[in-house]
Amino acid sequence: MRSLGGQLDLGTVTTPSLVLERARLVANAHAMRRRAAELGVALRPHLKTVKSEAIAQIATTGAGGTVSTLREAAYFAEHGLTDLVLAVCVTADRLDRCAELVERGTRLTVITDDVEVARAIAAHPVMIPALVEVDSGGARTGVRPDDPELIEVAEGLGDRLRGVLTHAGHSYEAAGAEAIARIAEDERRAVVGAAERLRSAGLRCDVVSLGSTPTAVHAASAAGATEMRPGVYLLMDLFQAAIGCCRLDDIAISVLSTVISRRGDRALIDAGALALSKDRSTAHSPVDSGYGLVCDLDGAPLVGSGRPVIVSDVHQEHGFVDDAPRGLRVGDRVRVLPNHACMTAAAYDGYHVVDGSLATVDRYGRCNGW
Amino acid sequence: MRSLGGQLDLGTVTTPSLVLERARLVANAHAMRRRAAELGVALRPHLKTVKSEAIAQIATTGAGGTVSTLREAAYFAEHGLTDLVLAVCVTADRLDRCAELVERGTRLTVITDDVEVARAIAAHPVMIPALVEVDSGGARTGVRPDDPELIEVAEGLGDRLRGVLTHAGHSYEAAGAEAIARIAEDERRAVVGAAERLRSAGLRCDVVSLGSTPTAVHAASAAGATEMRPGVYLLMDLFQAAIGCCRLDDIAISVLSTVISRRGDRALIDAGALALSKDRSTAHSPVDSGYGLVCDLDGAPLVGSGRPVIVSDVHQEHGFVDDAPRGLRVGDRVRVLPNHACMTAAAYDGYHVVDGSLATVDRYGRCNGW
Repeated sequence: MRSLGGQLDLGTVTTPSLVLERARLVANAHAMRRRAAELGVALRPHLKTVKSEAIAQIATTGAGGTVSTLREAAYFAEHGLTDLVLAVCVTADRLDRCAELVERGTRLTVITDDVEVARAIAAHPVMIPALVEVDSGGARTGVRPDDPELIEVAEGLGDRLRGVLTHAGHSYEAAGAEAIARIAEDERRAVVGAAERLRSAGLRCDVVSLGSTPTAVHAASAAGATEMRPGVYLLMDLFQAAIGCCRLDDIAISVLSTVISRRGDRALIDAGALALSKDRSTAHSPVDSGYGLVCDLDGAPLVGSGRPVIVSDVHQEHGFVDDAPRGLRVGDRVRVLPNHACMTAAAYDGYHVVDGSLATVDRYGRCNGW
Repeated sequence: MRSLGGQLDLGTVTTPSLVLERARLVANAHAMRRRAAELGVALRPHLKTVKSEAIAQIATTGAGGTVSTLREAAYFAEHGLTDLVLAVCVTADRLDRCAELVERGTRLTVITDDVEVARAIAAHPVMIPALVEVDSGGARTGVRPDDPELIEVAEGLGDRLRGVLTHAGHSYEAAGAEAIARIAEDERRAVVGAAERLRSAGLRCDVVSLGSTPTAVHAASAAGATEMRPGVYLLMDLFQAAIGCCRLDDIAISVLSTVISRRGDRALIDAGALALSKDRSTAHSPVDSGYGLVCDLDGAPLVGSGRPVIVSDVHQEHGFVDDAPRGLRVGDRVRVLPNHACMTAAAYDGYHVVDGSLATVDRYGRCNGW
């Protein structure tokens, strides 16, 4: 990285790199706090998107955080966030690593949908609190709320049982407030119904955890739930904009990139498949953004031939920008809004933080890998 | 990572992780050396796939290496590989970083297709050798061999000019030996034709560089070329198998993963979108492998309902394995062959190296990012 007059600047930092607009991040964090307050639940942000302790400090509210890997759990615990839910089904061979974190003072809650794993959690000499994962329609992991296995898994957990958790992953397949609100209601009913079944069976169920960004944004009610765990809302992305969960102006990250070649109407940029990811989640949206929407250095979408300018194809280190404005020349810099923040951010070891200008005001690290 | 009897083992290392079969890597490296010898050109392996100095030691033959980023260039130079071609168009603002490497003793050759960048290279106080990039049909970067700009860019480079370089990226869109051989011949003619035009104009052209794995495997001739730069051949992947450039048994990497949930015929594994990448390059192949082909711990493809078992969908940390064999249970481990080695490997900071058994015999690092 080179500095401009002693100050790092988006005009000079190495490209491709990941840029975070702090004011947007903070606004997104506040908006979700308001939603959680409106819905009457605690907010336990899923930190798998941001993977950054600096951002966790902005996002968390005293109700802890959610993680997707044990590496994240260890990283956030090391940085003082000691109330964590590991929201991917644990396996028996991971319990020793979980126990290490618990013994060092982290309240790490795990989840499972499997009777044998539940029994292994119960049998582990270290008390690791656990939730039963419930499938609210995503057909991923989780026991259906009306499945007899729900009670079996809960009983298997013995005195480790704390409650139930679900994630309506299929909310990503809906679009628009109404369709998502219907899925949010399915999600709520599934997990609250599971909680009621547990309690009817005389089992403990303090925690009733749900949430994804789309359902958190559009739910009409969270009655019966105790907490929600949205994650991508902190950064937002083109896909969330496409399904009506944010505006383009809410997207807090972009990939800073340099034009490396210009052939006729096509510009080639140095943000390719590794820098943007191969996520194509906007492919079936009303607006297909290819591999990302191309903006100028100040963040305003470029316009070519009257249409938004997108990255239409990627090779490993090349992004294809067709219909590029004539003025876009080799050496110019652009910022690309990503389809899917979780995927794109994972290619970077940190964020260049800016706050309404080109000057970088901070550098936030990330915790990638497993 | 935990050890089994003091020995790291694929049964116990943390998952998901990246496994490298050394014997396959070595065989792939040897096969390409033979191809280069048959074709009468030097082999300058593209190291953007492996990003590992330990693998570069196995792959290089005294003719140097190829890199895709300046970070790779600095990393390989630091590890003693000091003859490198940076095969992505350079920009003027990167010349100082290139010059630093040159001044520390690395022979770093850059490429461009732009007259102004060529002049900036010529004007830089440090002598940075350069090639003109030629477009042999991929319509990415590069000057068409019959374009008047070819001579302009070459002249712009002044005494920095060393020759021409092309990459037939569109060889990835062909399938089968004959179709790829035709593209290889287009690639050869384009770059050799460009070299002849330069020489006819009285310009220097020592280097005539071409190559991708598909064209290197299937070219009938490389007459007039001086070197080739395939890369993915070292690891191979499902896409290379699908287009007829290798057999499944040549694929040297796999993602080690654990079954975390089992719901009916569906198993969920802990290798999802981040662990496998969202590359779908086999989507249009005769055999669509989804996000990867699922093998047992010993590397034999699983069979469910009479068909190969694939990862049919991915979420961030979940892989969906439909039609999973009945015997595949929570806690079991599998190995997933990737669609595209370059994309999948980039999620990991290194390789667990094995050599025909489950015991890991080495750990090779990687150099990711920019």
